[in-house]
Amino acid sequence: MTTIERRGFMLVLSSPSGAGKTTLSRLLMQNDGNLVMSVSSTTRKPRPAEVHGKDYYFIDEAEFEQKIDEKFFFEYAEVFGNYYGTPRSKVENSIAEGKDVLFDIDWQGTRRLTSKARDDIVSIFILPPSMEELERRLRSRGQDEDDVIKRRMARAKDEISHWNEYDYVIINTDVDASLQNILYILKAERLKRTRRHSLPDFINELMK
Amino acid sequence: MTTIERRGFMLVLSSPSGAGKTTLSRLLMQNDGNLVMSVSSTTRKPRPAEVHGKDYYFIDEAEFEQKIDEKFFFEYAEVFGNYYGTPRSKVENSIAEGKDVLFDIDWQGTRRLTSKARDDIVSIFILPPSMEELERRLRSRGQDEDDVIKRRMARAKDEISHWNEYDYVIINTDVDASLQNILYILKAERLKRTRRHSLPDFINELMK
Repeated sequence: MTTIERRGFMLVLSSPSGAGKTTLSRLLMQNDGNLVMSVSSTTRKPRPAEVHGKDYYFIDEAEFEQKIDEKFFFEYAEVFGNYYGTPRSKVENSIAEGKDVLFDIDWQGTRRLTSKARDDIVSIFILPPSMEELERRLRSRGQDEDDVIKRRMARAKDEISHWNEYDYVIINTDVDASLQNILYILKAERLKRTRRHSLPDFINELMK
Repeated sequence: MTTIERRGFMLVLSSPSGAGKTTLSRLLMQNDGNLVMSVSSTTRKPRPAEVHGKDYYFIDEAEFEQKIDEKFFFEYAEVFGNYYGTPRSKVENSIAEGKDVLFDIDWQGTRRLTSKARDDIVSIFILPPSMEELERRLRSRGQDEDDVIKRRMARAKDEISHWNEYDYVIINTDVDASLQNILYILKAERLKRTRRHSLPDFINELMK
């Protein structure tokens, strides 16, 4: 079968906590063989249940600053006194090989990536069906105090207010339907003309 | 289920004759319930097998010019002494209702549409797997003289040289796979944030 080789892209998923982004990221990695996951580095302290190498690479400030000097990061920033950065090699190598790189990041990370590589970004915002449903999901985890829930809802509202900076928007009422929708977006984006870097030979002949 | 109302778009399919565009258009209309077909008007004479109201509305110059005066056309142009135009009402009404409008047109028609409404256009170029396969398909229709085939191949080459003016590119090796790919593009484009004109109420509340 004739295929056209292409450049990969960065698939960015953002959503407020509780809207289902983490579940969807896991399902995507299981259901699409051409995705690799990007894991950011940070100097902030791990939250409960966060795992080094999976949620973030948790490193100290000295190491982060050394990596900055070594041009280790594709992009980095300081947010509220903590560093956040995207390791460069995985992103650049994957894209060059025609792999797509999945990012599970917030609106600030998305803005930084976009400012670096607009044409290589495909960004999706996952919305909860309602704020009531979002609060219900946050509460059903059962482990948090009321004031923690309140802070999370405030953070969720802030995140949601940036929904209109994204290429696509999905309302996550049903996880399976949302997964299908993201897979459709992946399949379509892989057919974009601008990502092609090799053409069938006969096109090259015609263009001479 | 929560849905977000959206604006429709114009799905443009172009390809050289013989690459499978007509078959794919027919299959798309059968497989997607949200598509309506746009039929252009022209003053050129019908070719053998072309049907009035299906391939084109074949009208005379006086009628075409009257319709120009009545602002009947979304866009029109004169090409090699013949008028071509897209009836306005079907396009504008369908898009406003969230329907998508399918166009089976050449690169010149695509350019005219795009210059009128870039944000509402999704354009796909269908490539044959090779020029040899294209010629084989043109010959297998069995009804044409050698010099007709030659003229068609020359026209095909001219059409193909514009492949890089399109949003997506599909190599039509297998009709079913190509149909699936177009359906993926439709599903993804319907999730584009910029096509949304109504938001879930809670977003409006948050944005106040």
